[in-house]
Amino acid sequence: MTGLTVLPVEGLAEVRQGDVLADLIAAAVTLVDGDVVVVTQKVVSKAEGRVVALDPTLGAAAHRQLVENESVRVLRRRGDLVVSETAHGFVCANAGVDLSNMEPGTAALLPVDADRSARRIRDGLRGRAGVQVGVIVSDTFGRPWRRGLTDVAIGTAGVAAVVDLRGRSDTFGRPLHVTEVCVADELAGAAELVMGKASGVPVAVVRGVDPAWLRESSVRAEIVRHPAEDLFR
Amino acid sequence: MTGLTVLPVEGLAEVRQGDVLADLIAAAVTLVDGDVVVVTQKVVSKAEGRVVALDPTLGAAAHRQLVENESVRVLRRRGDLVVSETAHGFVCANAGVDLSNMEPGTAALLPVDADRSARRIRDGLRGRAGVQVGVIVSDTFGRPWRRGLTDVAIGTAGVAAVVDLRGRSDTFGRPLHVTEVCVADELAGAAELVMGKASGVPVAVVRGVDPAWLRESSVRAEIVRHPAEDLFR
Repeated sequence: MTGLTVLPVEGLAEVRQGDVLADLIAAAVTLVDGDVVVVTQKVVSKAEGRVVALDPTLGAAAHRQLVENESVRVLRRRGDLVVSETAHGFVCANAGVDLSNMEPGTAALLPVDADRSARRIRDGLRGRAGVQVGVIVSDTFGRPWRRGLTDVAIGTAGVAAVVDLRGRSDTFGRPLHVTEVCVADELAGAAELVMGKASGVPVAVVRGVDPAWLRESSVRAEIVRHPAEDLFR
Repeated sequence: MTGLTVLPVEGLAEVRQGDVLADLIAAAVTLVDGDVVVVTQKVVSKAEGRVVALDPTLGAAAHRQLVENESVRVLRRRGDLVVSETAHGFVCANAGVDLSNMEPGTAALLPVDADRSARRIRDGLRGRAGVQVGVIVSDTFGRPWRRGLTDVAIGTAGVAAVVDLRGRSDTFGRPLHVTEVCVADELAGAAELVMGKASGVPVAVVRGVDPAWLRESSVRAEIVRHPAEDLFR
Protein backbone atom coordinates (compact mmCIF):
# COMPACT_ATOMS: atom_id res chain seq x y z
CA MET A 1 0.00 0.00 0.00
CA THR A 2 1.65 3.20 -1.16
CA GLY A 3 -0.96 5.70 -0.12
CA LEU A 4 -3.55 7.87 -1.73
CA THR A 5 -3.42 11.22 -3.48
CA VAL A 6 -6.38 13.60 -3.47
CA LEU A 7 -6.28 16.25 -6.19
CA PRO A 8 -8.65 19.15 -6.78
CA VAL A 9 -9.76 19.61 -10.40
CA GLU A 10 -9.47 23.30 -11.12
CA GLY A 11 -10.55 25.28 -14.13
CA LEU A 12 -13.93 23.65 -14.66
CA ALA A 13 -16.32 26.11 -16.28
CA GLU A 14 -19.57 27.13 -14.53
CA VAL A 15 -21.86 24.20 -15.26
CA ARG A 16 -25.14 24.75 -17.13
CA GLN A 17 -28.13 22.54 -17.88
CA GLY A 18 -27.35 20.08 -20.65
CA ASP A 19 -23.60 20.15 -20.13
CA VAL A 20 -21.93 16.76 -20.39
CA LEU A 21 -19.95 16.56 -17.17
CA ALA A 22 -17.67 13.79 -18.43
CA ASP A 23 -16.56 16.08 -21.26
CA LEU A 24 -15.89 19.01 -18.91
CA ILE A 25 -13.97 16.79 -16.49
CA ALA A 26 -11.94 15.07 -19.22
CA ALA A 27 -10.97 18.51 -20.57
CA ALA A 28 -9.80 19.70 -17.15
CA VAL A 29 -7.77 16.76 -15.80
CA THR A 30 -5.77 13.80 -17.07
CA LEU A 31 -7.17 10.67 -15.48
CA VAL A 32 -5.62 7.23 -15.18
CA ASP A 33 -7.25 3.81 -14.79
CA GLY A 34 -8.30 3.22 -11.19
CA ASP A 35 -8.87 6.87 -10.29
CA VAL A 36 -11.98 7.75 -8.33
CA VAL A 37 -13.60 10.98 -9.52
CA VAL A 38 -15.72 12.73 -6.90
CA VAL A 39 -18.27 15.21 -8.29
CA THR A 40 -20.39 17.40 -6.01
CA GLN A 41 -24.14 17.14 -6.26
CA LYS A 42 -24.52 20.80 -7.13
CA VAL A 43 -22.92 20.56 -10.57
CA VAL A 44 -24.67 17.27 -11.27
CA SER A 45 -28.02 18.86 -10.44
CA LYS A 46 -27.21 21.87 -12.64
CA ALA A 47 -26.15 19.71 -15.58
CA GLU A 48 -29.29 17.59 -15.23
CA GLY A 49 -31.59 20.58 -14.99
CA ARG A 50 -32.59 19.88 -11.39
CA VAL A 51 -32.84 23.61 -10.72
CA VAL A 52 -36.12 25.30 -9.90
CA ALA A 53 -37.15 28.92 -9.66
CA LEU A 54 -38.34 29.99 -6.22
CA ASP A 55 -41.77 31.59 -6.28
CA PRO A 56 -40.93 35.28 -5.57
CA THR A 57 -44.40 35.96 -4.13
CA LEU A 58 -43.73 33.47 -1.32
CA GLY A 59 -40.49 35.01 -0.03
CA ALA A 60 -38.80 32.80 2.57
CA ALA A 61 -41.73 30.38 2.43
CA ALA A 62 -40.74 29.38 -1.12
CA HIS A 63 -37.77 27.42 0.18
CA ARG A 64 -39.87 25.82 2.92
CA GLN A 65 -42.46 24.69 0.41
CA LEU A 66 -39.82 23.07 -1.77
CA VAL A 67 -38.44 21.21 1.23
CA GLU A 68 -41.88 19.85 2.04
CA ASN A 69 -42.34 18.78 -1.58
CA GLU A 70 -39.04 16.91 -1.59
CA SER A 71 -39.69 15.14 1.73
CA VAL A 72 -41.45 11.81 2.09
CA ARG A 73 -41.16 11.75 5.91
CA VAL A 74 -40.22 14.53 8.32
CA LEU A 75 -38.11 13.29 11.24
CA ARG A 76 -37.51 16.54 13.12
CA ARG A 77 -38.27 20.25 12.88
CA ARG A 78 -36.61 23.08 14.76
CA GLY A 79 -37.08 26.65 13.61
CA ASP A 80 -36.28 26.80 9.91
CA LEU A 81 -34.50 23.46 9.98
CA VAL A 82 -36.26 20.35 8.73
CA VAL A 83 -34.57 16.94 8.93
CA SER A 84 -36.42 14.65 6.58
CA GLU A 85 -36.23 11.58 4.45
CA THR A 86 -36.18 12.10 0.70
CA ALA A 87 -37.66 9.87 -1.99
CA HIS A 88 -34.16 8.41 -2.42
CA GLY A 89 -34.07 7.30 1.22
CA PHE A 90 -31.53 9.92 2.31
CA VAL A 91 -32.07 11.56 5.69
CA CYS A 92 -30.69 15.08 5.62
CA ALA A 93 -31.42 18.71 6.34
CA ASN A 94 -33.94 20.46 4.12
CA ALA A 95 -34.36 17.39 1.90
CA GLY A 96 -31.22 18.38 0.03
CA VAL A 97 -32.78 21.57 -1.35
CA ASP A 98 -29.87 23.95 -1.67
CA LEU A 99 -29.62 27.70 -2.22
CA SER A 100 -25.86 28.18 -1.86
CA ASN A 101 -23.78 28.69 -4.98
CA MET A 102 -27.03 29.10 -6.93
CA GLU A 103 -28.22 32.10 -8.88
CA PRO A 104 -30.45 34.20 -6.63
CA GLY A 105 -34.07 33.11 -6.90
CA THR A 106 -33.20 29.52 -7.76
CA ALA A 107 -32.59 26.33 -5.79
CA ALA A 108 -30.95 23.03 -6.65
CA LEU A 109 -32.75 19.75 -5.97
CA LEU A 110 -30.98 16.42 -5.55
CA PRO A 111 -30.50 14.40 -8.74
CA VAL A 112 -33.41 12.04 -9.42
CA ASP A 113 -31.06 9.04 -9.26
CA ALA A 114 -27.49 9.91 -8.31
CA ASP A 115 -26.28 6.34 -8.90
CA ARG A 116 -27.42 6.76 -12.48
CA SER A 117 -25.75 10.19 -12.62
CA ALA A 118 -22.49 8.59 -11.48
CA ARG A 119 -22.81 5.81 -14.06
CA ARG A 120 -23.39 8.37 -16.80
CA ILE A 121 -20.22 10.26 -15.86
CA ARG A 122 -18.25 7.02 -15.52
CA ASP A 123 -19.41 5.80 -18.95
CA GLY A 124 -18.71 9.20 -20.46
CA LEU A 125 -15.17 9.22 -19.12
CA ARG A 126 -14.59 5.73 -20.48
CA GLY A 127 -15.79 6.83 -23.90
CA ARG A 128 -14.22 10.28 -23.92
CA ALA A 129 -10.91 9.65 -22.14
CA GLY A 130 -10.58 5.88 -22.51
CA VAL A 131 -10.11 5.37 -18.78
CA GLN A 132 -11.75 2.97 -16.38
CA VAL A 133 -12.51 5.03 -13.28
CA GLY A 134 -14.90 5.04 -10.34
CA VAL A 135 -17.26 7.98 -9.86
CA ILE A 136 -18.87 9.27 -6.68
CA VAL A 137 -21.54 11.97 -6.56
CA SER A 138 -21.16 13.69 -3.18
CA ASP A 139 -23.25 15.97 -1.03
CA THR A 140 -22.76 17.74 2.28
CA PHE A 141 -24.83 16.28 5.12
CA GLY A 142 -25.08 16.89 8.84
CA ARG A 143 -25.44 14.10 11.34
CA PRO A 144 -26.89 13.70 14.82
CA TRP A 145 -24.65 13.87 17.91
CA ARG A 146 -21.69 15.45 16.12
CA ARG A 147 -21.30 19.06 15.06
CA GLY A 148 -20.05 20.06 11.65
CA LEU A 149 -20.95 18.75 8.23
CA THR A 150 -19.13 16.17 6.15
CA ASP A 151 -19.37 15.18 2.53
CA VAL A 152 -20.88 11.78 1.84
CA ALA A 153 -21.72 9.72 -1.24
CA ILE A 154 -25.20 9.97 -2.73
CA GLY A 155 -24.32 8.06 -5.90
CA THR A 156 -21.56 5.70 -7.00
CA ALA A 157 -20.45 3.87 -10.12
CA GLY A 158 -17.47 1.63 -10.57
CA VAL A 159 -16.25 1.97 -6.99
CA ALA A 160 -17.55 0.13 -3.94
CA ALA A 161 -19.91 2.01 -1.66
CA VAL A 162 -19.49 -0.36 1.30
CA VAL A 163 -16.61 -2.82 1.61
CA ASP A 164 -17.35 -6.00 3.50
CA LEU A 165 -14.36 -7.24 5.48
CA ARG A 166 -16.16 -10.30 6.81
CA GLY A 167 -14.13 -13.44 6.39
CA ARG A 168 -10.87 -11.63 7.01
CA SER A 169 -9.20 -12.00 10.38
CA ASP A 170 -7.79 -9.49 12.81
CA THR A 171 -4.14 -9.54 13.86
CA PHE A 172 -4.96 -12.20 16.48
CA GLY A 173 -6.49 -14.44 13.82
CA ARG A 174 -10.09 -14.05 15.01
CA PRO A 175 -12.92 -13.10 12.67
CA LEU A 176 -13.39 -9.35 12.54
CA HIS A 177 -16.44 -7.98 14.34
CA VAL A 178 -16.26 -4.60 12.63
CA THR A 179 -16.91 -5.62 9.09
CA GLU A 180 -18.55 -3.11 6.80
CA VAL A 181 -16.70 0.08 5.99
CA CYS A 182 -18.40 2.80 3.98
CA VAL A 183 -15.43 3.66 1.80
CA ALA A 184 -17.56 5.80 -0.54
CA ASP A 185 -18.38 8.21 2.29
CA GLU A 186 -14.73 8.29 3.34
CA LEU A 187 -13.69 9.00 -0.25
CA ALA A 188 -16.29 11.77 -0.55
CA GLY A 189 -15.03 13.33 2.69
CA ALA A 190 -11.41 13.11 1.54
CA ALA A 191 -12.36 14.91 -1.66
CA GLU A 192 -14.11 17.66 0.29
CA LEU A 193 -10.83 18.41 2.05
CA VAL A 194 -9.35 19.72 -1.22
CA MET A 195 -12.47 21.39 -2.56
CA GLY A 196 -13.21 23.98 0.05
CA LYS A 197 -16.77 25.15 0.23
CA ALA A 198 -16.17 28.63 -1.15
CA SER A 199 -13.45 28.02 -3.67
CA GLY A 200 -15.70 26.73 -6.43
CA VAL A 201 -13.91 23.45 -7.02
CA PRO A 202 -16.68 20.91 -7.58
CA VAL A 203 -14.57 17.92 -8.66
CA ALA A 204 -11.64 16.07 -7.11
CA VAL A 205 -9.73 12.93 -8.00
CA VAL A 206 -8.62 10.27 -5.51
CA ARG A 207 -5.73 8.27 -6.93
CA GLY A 208 -4.36 5.02 -5.54
CA VAL A 209 -7.41 3.33 -4.02
CA ASP A 210 -7.39 -0.41 -3.40
CA PRO A 211 -8.08 -2.01 -6.82
CA ALA A 212 -10.42 -4.50 -5.13
CA TRP A 213 -12.84 -1.61 -4.54
CA LEU A 214 -13.28 -0.93 -8.24
CA ARG A 215 -16.50 -2.77 -9.01
CA GLU A 216 -20.14 -2.11 -9.82
CA SER A 217 -21.90 -0.42 -6.92
CA SER A 218 -24.87 1.61 -5.77
CA VAL A 219 -25.48 3.96 -2.89
CA ARG A 220 -29.14 3.07 -2.89
CA ALA A 221 -28.44 -0.67 -2.59
CA GLU A 222 -25.41 -0.52 -0.29
CA ILE A 223 -25.63 2.58 1.91
CA VAL A 224 -29.26 3.63 2.25
CA ARG A 225 -30.55 1.83 5.33
CA HIS A 226 -34.08 0.53 5.15
CA PRO A 227 -36.32 2.18 7.79
CA ALA A 228 -37.20 -1.27 9.17
CA GLU A 229 -33.58 -1.97 10.09
CA ASP A 230 -32.91 1.55 11.33
CA LEU A 231 -32.96 2.27 15.06
CA PHE A 232 -33.48 6.01 14.58
CA ARG A 233 -36.62 6.29 12.46
CA MET B 1 -4.07 24.04 -3.58
CA THR B 2 -1.91 21.15 -4.75
CA GLY B 3 -3.77 18.29 -3.14
CA LEU B 4 -3.31 15.91 -0.26
CA THR B 5 -1.43 12.68 0.17
CA VAL B 6 -2.48 10.01 2.66
CA LEU B 7 0.26 7.60 3.68
CA PRO B 8 0.03 4.48 5.83
CA VAL B 9 2.71 4.17 8.51
CA GLU B 10 3.92 0.60 8.33
CA GLY B 11 6.30 -1.29 10.59
CA LEU B 12 4.97 -0.04 13.90
CA ALA B 13 5.57 -2.64 16.61
CA GLU B 14 2.62 -4.17 18.50
CA VAL B 15 1.81 -1.49 21.09
CA ARG B 16 1.96 -2.30 24.82
CA GLN B 17 0.93 -0.42 27.95
CA GLY B 18 3.42 2.31 28.76
CA ASP B 19 4.75 2.66 25.23
CA VAL B 20 5.37 6.23 24.14
CA LEU B 21 3.46 6.43 20.88
CA ALA B 22 5.31 9.54 19.69
CA ASP B 23 8.58 7.61 19.90
CA LEU B 24 7.18 4.62 17.99
CA ILE B 25 5.71 6.88 15.31
CA ALA B 26 8.85 9.01 14.97
CA ALA B 27 10.89 5.82 14.53
CA ALA B 28 8.59 4.54 11.78
CA VAL B 29 8.02 7.61 9.59
CA THR B 30 9.72 10.86 8.64
CA LEU B 31 7.29 13.68 9.32
CA VAL B 32 7.34 17.25 8.06
CA ASP B 33 5.82 20.41 9.54
CA GLY B 34 2.13 20.62 8.78
CA ASP B 35 1.51 16.88 8.57
CA VAL B 36 -1.56 15.49 10.29
CA VAL B 37 -0.89 12.18 12.05
CA VAL B 38 -3.97 10.00 12.52
CA VAL B 39 -3.68 7.35 15.23
CA THR B 40 -6.39 4.75 15.83
CA GLN B 41 -7.97 4.58 19.25
CA LYS B 42 -6.94 0.97 19.73
CA VAL B 43 -3.22 1.64 20.01
CA VAL B 44 -3.83 4.76 22.12
CA SER B 45 -5.94 2.71 24.53
CA LYS B 46 -3.29 -0.01 24.66
CA ALA B 47 -0.46 2.46 25.31
CA GLU B 48 -2.52 4.16 28.02
CA GLY B 49 -3.47 0.90 29.71
CA ARG B 50 -7.17 1.23 28.89
CA VAL B 51 -7.40 -2.55 28.52
CA VAL B 52 -9.46 -4.65 30.88
CA ALA B 53 -9.72 -8.38 31.41
CA LEU B 54 -13.17 -9.82 30.73
CA ASP B 55 -14.57 -11.80 33.65
CA PRO B 56 -14.35 -15.39 32.31
CA THR B 57 -17.14 -16.58 34.62
CA LEU B 58 -19.58 -14.23 32.85
CA GLY B 59 -19.00 -15.47 29.29
CA ALA B 60 -20.74 -13.29 26.71
CA ALA B 61 -22.29 -11.23 29.52
CA ALA B 62 -18.85 -9.84 30.42
CA HIS B 63 -18.81 -7.65 27.33
CA ARG B 64 -22.39 -6.53 27.96
CA GLN B 65 -21.56 -5.53 31.51
CA LEU B 66 -18.59 -3.45 30.37
CA VAL B 67 -20.79 -1.68 27.84
CA GLU B 68 -23.28 -0.80 30.59
CA ASN B 69 -20.46 0.48 32.80
CA GLU B 70 -19.10 2.71 30.03
CA SER B 71 -22.52 4.16 29.12
CA VAL B 72 -24.09 7.20 30.72
CA ARG B 73 -27.27 7.02 28.63
CA VAL B 74 -28.59 4.21 26.46
CA LEU B 75 -30.32 5.48 23.31
CA ARG B 76 -31.28 2.20 21.65
CA ARG B 77 -30.98 -1.54 22.17
CA ARG B 78 -31.52 -4.29 19.62
CA GLY B 79 -30.29 -7.81 20.30
CA ASP B 80 -26.66 -7.58 21.38
CA LEU B 81 -26.29 -4.05 20.03
CA VAL B 82 -26.39 -1.09 22.39
CA VAL B 83 -26.19 2.47 21.07
CA SER B 84 -25.28 4.68 23.98
CA GLU B 85 -23.69 7.90 25.05
CA THR B 86 -20.32 7.67 26.77
CA ALA B 87 -18.94 9.87 29.52
CA HIS B 88 -17.09 11.77 26.77
CA GLY B 89 -20.38 12.61 25.02
CA PHE B 90 -19.82 10.25 22.10
CA VAL B 91 -22.81 8.33 20.82
CA CYS B 92 -21.68 5.01 19.40
CA ALA B 93 -22.22 1.27 19.43
CA ASN B 94 -21.27 -0.61 22.59
CA ALA B 95 -19.88 2.53 24.24
CA GLY B 96 -16.66 2.09 22.33
CA VAL B 97 -15.81 -1.18 24.13
CA ASP B 98 -13.90 -3.18 21.56
CA LEU B 99 -12.84 -6.81 21.34
CA SER B 100 -11.33 -6.87 17.85
CA ASN B 101 -7.56 -6.90 17.49
CA MET B 102 -7.33 -7.55 21.23
CA GLU B 103 -5.83 -10.52 23.00
CA PRO B 104 -8.61 -13.04 23.74
CA GLY B 105 -10.19 -12.35 27.12
CA THR B 106 -9.46 -8.63 27.02
CA ALA B 107 -11.29 -5.54 25.77
CA ALA B 108 -10.16 -2.01 24.98
CA LEU B 109 -11.99 0.96 26.44
CA LEU B 110 -11.92 4.43 24.94
CA PRO B 111 -9.14 6.73 26.19
CA VAL B 112 -10.20 8.76 29.23
CA ASP B 113 -9.59 11.99 27.32
CA ALA B 114 -8.63 11.49 23.68
CA ASP B 115 -7.97 15.22 23.15
CA ARG B 116 -5.31 14.92 25.84
CA SER B 117 -4.01 11.73 24.21
CA ALA B 118 -3.67 13.62 20.93
CA ARG B 119 -1.88 16.51 22.65
CA ARG B 120 0.57 14.12 24.29
CA ILE B 121 1.45 12.56 20.93
CA ARG B 122 1.69 15.98 19.28
CA ASP B 123 3.97 17.29 22.03
CA GLY B 124 6.04 14.12 21.90
CA LEU B 125 6.56 14.42 18.15
CA ARG B 126 7.59 18.05 18.55
CA GLY B 127 10.14 17.05 21.18
CA ARG B 128 11.32 13.83 19.57
CA ALA B 129 11.25 14.72 15.87
CA GLY B 130 11.27 18.51 16.01
CA VAL B 131 8.17 18.82 13.86
CA GLN B 132 4.99 20.81 14.29
CA VAL B 133 2.18 18.46 13.33
CA GLY B 134 -1.49 17.96 14.00
CA VAL B 135 -2.67 14.74 15.62
CA ILE B 136 -6.07 13.04 15.42
CA VAL B 137 -7.11 10.03 17.49
CA SER B 138 -9.67 8.14 15.40
CA ASP B 139 -12.27 5.48 16.04
CA THR B 140 -14.71 3.54 13.88
CA PHE B 141 -18.35 4.54 14.43
CA GLY B 142 -21.63 3.64 12.83
CA ARG B 143 -24.34 6.17 12.14
CA PRO B 144 -28.10 6.15 11.75
CA TRP B 145 -29.72 6.03 8.30
CA ARG B 146 -26.58 4.95 6.46
CA ARG B 147 -25.03 1.50 6.37
CA GLY B 148 -21.34 0.90 6.87
CA LEU B 149 -18.93 2.35 9.39
CA THR B 150 -16.57 5.27 8.96
CA ASP B 151 -13.62 6.47 10.99
CA VAL B 152 -14.16 9.72 12.90
CA ALA B 153 -12.10 11.87 15.25
CA ILE B 154 -12.43 11.30 19.00
CA GLY B 155 -9.47 13.53 19.89
CA THR B 156 -7.49 16.28 18.17
CA ALA B 157 -4.44 18.45 18.84
CA GLY B 158 -2.91 21.04 16.59
CA VAL B 159 -5.43 20.61 13.79
CA ALA B 160 -8.93 22.05 13.59
CA ALA B 161 -11.81 19.75 14.44
CA VAL B 162 -14.48 21.94 12.81
CA VAL B 163 -13.67 24.70 10.32
CA ASP B 164 -16.04 27.62 10.26
CA LEU B 165 -16.51 29.05 6.78
CA ARG B 166 -18.91 31.75 7.92
CA GLY B 167 -18.01 35.14 6.55
CA ARG B 168 -16.77 33.70 3.31
CA SER B 169 -18.94 34.01 0.25
CA ASP B 170 -20.06 31.52 -2.32
CA THR B 171 -19.28 31.95 -6.01
CA PHE B 172 -22.27 34.30 -6.36
CA GLY B 173 -20.97 36.51 -3.58
CA ARG B 174 -23.67 35.61 -1.05
CA PRO B 175 -22.87 34.50 2.47
CA LEU B 176 -22.53 30.74 2.69
CA HIS B 177 -25.34 28.88 4.41
CA VAL B 178 -23.33 25.70 4.81
CA THR B 179 -20.69 26.88 7.16
CA GLU B 180 -19.17 24.38 9.53
CA VAL B 181 -17.19 21.49 8.07
CA CYS B 182 -15.93 18.75 10.34
CA VAL B 183 -12.52 18.40 8.73
CA ALA B 184 -11.22 16.19 11.56
CA ASP B 185 -13.79 13.51 10.74
CA GLU B 186 -12.99 13.78 7.05
CA LEU B 187 -9.26 13.47 7.81
CA ALA B 188 -9.90 10.44 10.04
CA GLY B 189 -11.94 8.83 7.27
CA ALA B 190 -9.27 9.55 4.67
CA ALA B 191 -6.70 7.88 6.93
CA GLU B 192 -8.90 4.79 7.32
CA LEU B 193 -8.79 4.33 3.54
CA VAL B 194 -5.09 3.44 3.72
CA MET B 195 -5.19 1.52 6.99
CA GLY B 196 -7.55 -1.33 6.18
CA LYS B 197 -9.22 -2.97 9.11
CA ALA B 198 -7.30 -6.24 9.00
CA SER B 199 -3.89 -5.08 7.89
CA GLY B 200 -2.71 -3.89 11.28
CA VAL B 201 -1.72 -0.39 10.23
CA PRO B 202 -2.85 1.84 13.11
CA VAL B 203 -1.27 5.13 11.99
CA ALA B 204 -1.46 7.21 8.82
CA VAL B 205 -0.17 10.61 7.79
CA VAL B 206 -2.13 13.20 5.81
CA ARG B 207 0.22 15.63 4.10
CA GLY B 208 -0.75 18.92 2.50
CA VAL B 209 -3.70 20.11 4.56
CA ASP B 210 -4.69 23.76 4.50
CA PRO B 211 -2.21 25.52 6.86
CA ALA B 212 -5.10 27.58 8.26
CA TRP B 213 -6.41 24.38 9.88
CA LEU B 214 -3.28 23.94 12.00
CA ARG B 215 -4.36 25.42 15.32
CA GLU B 216 -5.29 24.37 18.84
CA SER B 217 -8.43 22.30 18.88
CA SER B 218 -10.60 19.86 20.77
CA VAL B 219 -13.13 17.25 19.73
CA ARG B 220 -14.96 17.69 22.99
CA ALA B 221 -15.34 21.45 22.50
CA GLU B 222 -15.90 21.49 18.75
CA ILE B 223 -17.56 18.25 17.66
CA VAL B 224 -19.44 16.74 20.59
CA ARG B 225 -22.96 18.16 20.36
CA HIS B 226 -24.62 19.03 23.62
CA PRO B 227 -27.76 16.94 24.18
CA ALA B 228 -29.81 20.15 24.55
CA GLU B 229 -28.99 21.22 20.99
CA ASP B 230 -29.34 17.72 19.55
CA LEU B 231 -32.54 16.74 17.75
CA PHE B 232 -31.92 13.01 18.17
CA ARG B 233 -31.54 12.52 21.93
